[in-house]
Amino acid sequence: MIRPFDDTYFMRKALQEAKVAYEKGEIPVGAIIVVEDRIIARTHNLTELLNDVTAHAEMQAITSAANFLGGKYLNKCTLYVTLEPCQMCAGALYWSQISKIVYAASDAERGYKTLGTKLHPKTKVVSGILAEEASELLRRFFIEKRNLN
Amino acid sequence: MIRPFDDTYFMRKALQEAKVAYEKGEIPVGAIIVVEDRIIARTHNLTELLNDVTAHAEMQAITSAANFLGGKYLNKCTLYVTLEPCQMCAGALYWSQISKIVYAASDAERGYKTLGTKLHPKTKVVSGILAEEASELLRRFFIEKRNLN
Repeated sequence: MIRPFDDTYFMRKALQEAKVAYEKGEIPVGAIIVVEDRIIARTHNLTELLNDVTAHAEMQAITSAANFLGGKYLNKCTLYVTLEPCQMCAGALYWSQISKIVYAASDAERGYKTLGTKLHPKTKVVSGILAEEASELLRRFFIEKRNLN
Repeated sequence: MIRPFDDTYFMRKALQEAKVAYEKGEIPVGAIIVVEDRIIARTHNLTELLNDVTAHAEMQAITSAANFLGGKYLNKCTLYVTLEPCQMCAGALYWSQISKIVYAASDAERGYKTLGTKLHPKTKVVSGILAEEASELLRRFFIEKRNLN
């Protein structure tokens, strides 16, 4: 059976958001939140523009999805994010009781897995979807940034 | 030497914020951020009102202080918060590079210490200031909430 709305489909939407961040000079991370194959939040990292360390893509996506749903628990939702969540974002996802997290690239240094942040027991995790594309965008960003300084 | 602006003085201000949260039916946690004895952010938990799990007192305080300072790093700031930060808030405080964290009550279940969340290496931590008052307010809130249900 053909299933058009799979994890790769939605991760591509998150990658589009990461590219918008890249164009703005932000660390290129994008996120979307999906309920029953419907995208209810599209966000990208805005820490530079907003001068705010809490403005990671995932944090904004959680706030935006809760606003859309009119309730703060995301237990029927899936988050797609182009980089493994950090401690802060994983901690927020814990509170949200989100059903599923799909991330693309791993973050061996500051990712929640390395740092042992606890997710909600009901949250499933899938990783590695479009990881190479997401990593390549981040790599390009940091190389260009280094060359500017 | 008399030092009017000590940790207890500022924690009392954070407790005032916690009481405002209590009056609103929010889990009573308050926070303030201080630079050179000057309060630059006053916040309290608003997760119910905003329908948003990310609206902890500390998260709002970080955003508010960065907005006041016009920069996202809080490396000259001290956070006073009435309850030990959770994973999310500790993760945000990591990114903020905050100089000092002072908290009142401990949270043995969901606090960052139990869960092993990493703070920035430059961040100092003081705990237990007005802990009994902060705990008592939380205890009263949860007892009243249970009696309502």
